[in-house]
Amino acid sequence: MNLFPQTLETLIEKFASLPGIGRKTAQRLAFFVLSRPEEEAEAFADAIVQAKRNIFPCRVCHNLTDSELCPICSNPARDTHTICVVSDPKDVVALERGREYNGLYHVLHGVISPMNHVSPDDLTIRELVARVAEGEIREVIMATNPDTEGETTARYISRLLKPFEVKITRLAYGVPVGANLEFADDATLSRAMEGRTDF
Amino acid sequence: MNLFPQTLETLIEKFASLPGIGRKTAQRLAFFVLSRPEEEAEAFADAIVQAKRNIFPCRVCHNLTDSELCPICSNPARDTHTICVVSDPKDVVALERGREYNGLYHVLHGVISPMNHVSPDDLTIRELVARVAEGEIREVIMATNPDTEGETTARYISRLLKPFEVKITRLAYGVPVGANLEFADDATLSRAMEGRTDF
Repeated sequence: MNLFPQTLETLIEKFASLPGIGRKTAQRLAFFVLSRPEEEAEAFADAIVQAKRNIFPCRVCHNLTDSELCPICSNPARDTHTICVVSDPKDVVALERGREYNGLYHVLHGVISPMNHVSPDDLTIRELVARVAEGEIREVIMATNPDTEGETTARYISRLLKPFEVKITRLAYGVPVGANLEFADDATLSRAMEGRTDF
Repeated sequence: MNLFPQTLETLIEKFASLPGIGRKTAQRLAFFVLSRPEEEAEAFADAIVQAKRNIFPCRVCHNLTDSELCPICSNPARDTHTICVVSDPKDVVALERGREYNGLYHVLHGVISPMNHVSPDDLTIRELVARVAEGEIREVIMATNPDTEGETTARYISRLLKPFEVKITRLAYGVPVGANLEFADDATLSRAMEGRTDF
């Protein structure tokens, strides 16, 4: 039964097709859009089309960009001998927030996950190996998420990179800065203990 | 600090401007849109523009419609002597699902709420009084939500309609069908007791 007019129903369905948005939330979002001025709705629609048309993966690091080479790959101040491997463009943003890293990135766009039918060929692993094979890279830092799939992916990639003269490292495990030890999970605590450093 | 390309950042901001969508969810939605085929993104954009252009309030009942008169107001099989007053188009959909009601509606588009700066003039109350003043209406059923603001709005409207020869009723309060008495709140239980009927 469809009591909303068809154009409204279509908009609700579009919102409901987004991940994590159920029918009720989709209705709320559609009504909100209708309640706003026409320019605003058009600006929203335009943002979708423009983003889809102008954003694509950087041809070197595969981070999302609106230029052929992303701002990080084209920045002459970055250290071009180090690559940090992440699974997602959001991770680049997170690491850049840390201001500690000055090398390049390689965005895998996912992790190896047999459960979700993601195989190494679905990621940009081949492209990473090609970058390393060029011989300019001295260190590859694995920065996939510290969960099972992230670990598996990192281990898979480091095996592939073994034949090359390149140092392979990974982000340190440990208790998060500012966290309360009491609430840290056992695995984190044991990794933090294992990786303890001189004080 | 803005590390996503500008067009992507704009799309994230548009999503984040929707009610109940935070920055993280907005990122997730924007990335989802980017991951879909271009036709799909364009269909989404088009749905927004089309809904905004073609959906407006019915000139009689103010329910949202894509024709001058909504399907309910223009349906000759409906009882044109009864108006059910609701705060929101979603309530019309809910009541129609009940299949019990065959009259017309009047959508207020909100409730009186001094806290949220919504006064009677912001709602379609004047238009409701005008409909009743025409003399065809025999019964007005108040079906605003059974909360404080809904109650206040219903009471305000029924005072305005007093001068006219019209029966004013409201939806019955009581325990929801299929509900567990144990979990019903006190106010609902006392209203259910108060409004008890012969068995």
